[in-house]
Amino acid sequence: MSKTSMSTVDKALALLRYFSVQHPEIGLSELSRLAGYDKTTILRCMTALERNGFIEQSPETKRYRLGLAPATYARIRERSFPLMAFLQPQMDRLAANTGETAHATVVTGHILMTVQISEPDRATRVYIDPSIPLPVHATASGIVIAAHLPDAQRADLVAHSAFQQFTDSTTVDPQLFNDQLARARAQGFARADRSFENDVMGTAAAFFGPNGVLGGAVAVAAVASRFDARVEARIVQEVRAAAASVTQQLGGTLPTAPAGGN
Amino acid sequence: MSKTSMSTVDKALALLRYFSVQHPEIGLSELSRLAGYDKTTILRCMTALERNGFIEQSPETKRYRLGLAPATYARIRERSFPLMAFLQPQMDRLAANTGETAHATVVTGHILMTVQISEPDRATRVYIDPSIPLPVHATASGIVIAAHLPDAQRADLVAHSAFQQFTDSTTVDPQLFNDQLARARAQGFARADRSFENDVMGTAAAFFGPNGVLGGAVAVAAVASRFDARVEARIVQEVRAAAASVTQQLGGTLPTAPAGGN
Repeated sequence: MSKTSMSTVDKALALLRYFSVQHPEIGLSELSRLAGYDKTTILRCMTALERNGFIEQSPETKRYRLGLAPATYARIRERSFPLMAFLQPQMDRLAANTGETAHATVVTGHILMTVQISEPDRATRVYIDPSIPLPVHATASGIVIAAHLPDAQRADLVAHSAFQQFTDSTTVDPQLFNDQLARARAQGFARADRSFENDVMGTAAAFFGPNGVLGGAVAVAAVASRFDARVEARIVQEVRAAAASVTQQLGGTLPTAPAGGN
Repeated sequence: MSKTSMSTVDKALALLRYFSVQHPEIGLSELSRLAGYDKTTILRCMTALERNGFIEQSPETKRYRLGLAPATYARIRERSFPLMAFLQPQMDRLAANTGETAHATVVTGHILMTVQISEPDRATRVYIDPSIPLPVHATASGIVIAAHLPDAQRADLVAHSAFQQFTDSTTVDPQLFNDQLARARAQGFARADRSFENDVMGTAAAFFGPNGVLGGAVAVAAVASRFDARVEARIVQEVRAAAASVTQQLGGTLPTAPAGGN
């Protein structure tokens, strides 16, 4: 199996990422346009994905949609190493205590994935689409995770980041981004001030597993129009408490400081 | 992209199927032995799967385990086309009404996948491992699904079946299997009498989506030692009622008879 042929696996799996809650069904031509592969390549990828249950064709529209195989793998993973069930009450409490949307994010490969979301019980709230990977430079979760990753993994994550400008406040300058990482490490949390969406203030803190291995981040995405100094202080306190609680319940330990001894 | 290189996608995705609730972590050498590929091939497949979040390495043991990406795809699928949430109360009711384990199965590619399980509230019950694909010839779900598939899809499913002998009662003769399919079509349900596991009696009925497209099967896996004529009649009635209810709620219709006209 050559290295070239291996990139076929990446190509096929990358096609799955075009499907989202907003865009659940995609036709062959559209997928070809989105991914920039010719239709023959798309068809071969989709046939292999379909044989393995990752994709299916709608019997009515003949368009593609995600299949049911991922649910089986998700269930095996969760039964073997429970994370969603463990995070659910933590995120519910964080949402209730702050009155804003709470979520937990992990890094997998070079993708920041939302693994749990809990919305507050009020009319205006931030909606988080679980199908959209979080940009590392524009979200509080991304900054605080990048800040606490080992150097090689952080470099890989940053190398795969497009540093896209989402709002006027998005940091696209790598040096300014490095300053944000240093600040997150120093203060123990990160803030994303309307840098991913115009009306959203993000606050995130990292949680850790055994031996100080980074587990991910817990975050609150707050409606910016009601964010003031009092709310800010409350959210920082709650996010840090939630991260500490998750770390403790994971049997986790805080990482050893990279410089300056332990 | 050649046809040969496409089989790389199948090879990589097939590796995911070695992970189960009973076997959540697998090392490189063991995976190589299980799959029959050399270690270099395994390593390339796993690296591509890891980059895409389908696999991760345990930080402690360095062995592989399933990653978190499938959970995201499962969530998008479920939010777009809710099936698990829809089946959950149905299976809970079936388990409560029969006092035995209820489950729902769908066919995806040539794999019969358990998508929902509900266990009864009693000390002895059948445990169903959601990570094990159901053998088509040895389970009531497999028989009733094969019985109601279009010919080409049934042929594909049967062609991929190993007709493995699980117990003394497993039907491994294709002609006897065909008789079981005919009986399932005639009576509207299938029975698997200790043919997959020695102590389990399976009863399954098919459910259908719009236009008579087969959706899957609902089934009850009962402890054989307490299975008698009264229990049997009750389970058949409840399984058929559950399949009819699922079909109705899916906006489904019963398939047109393949022969004899409509």
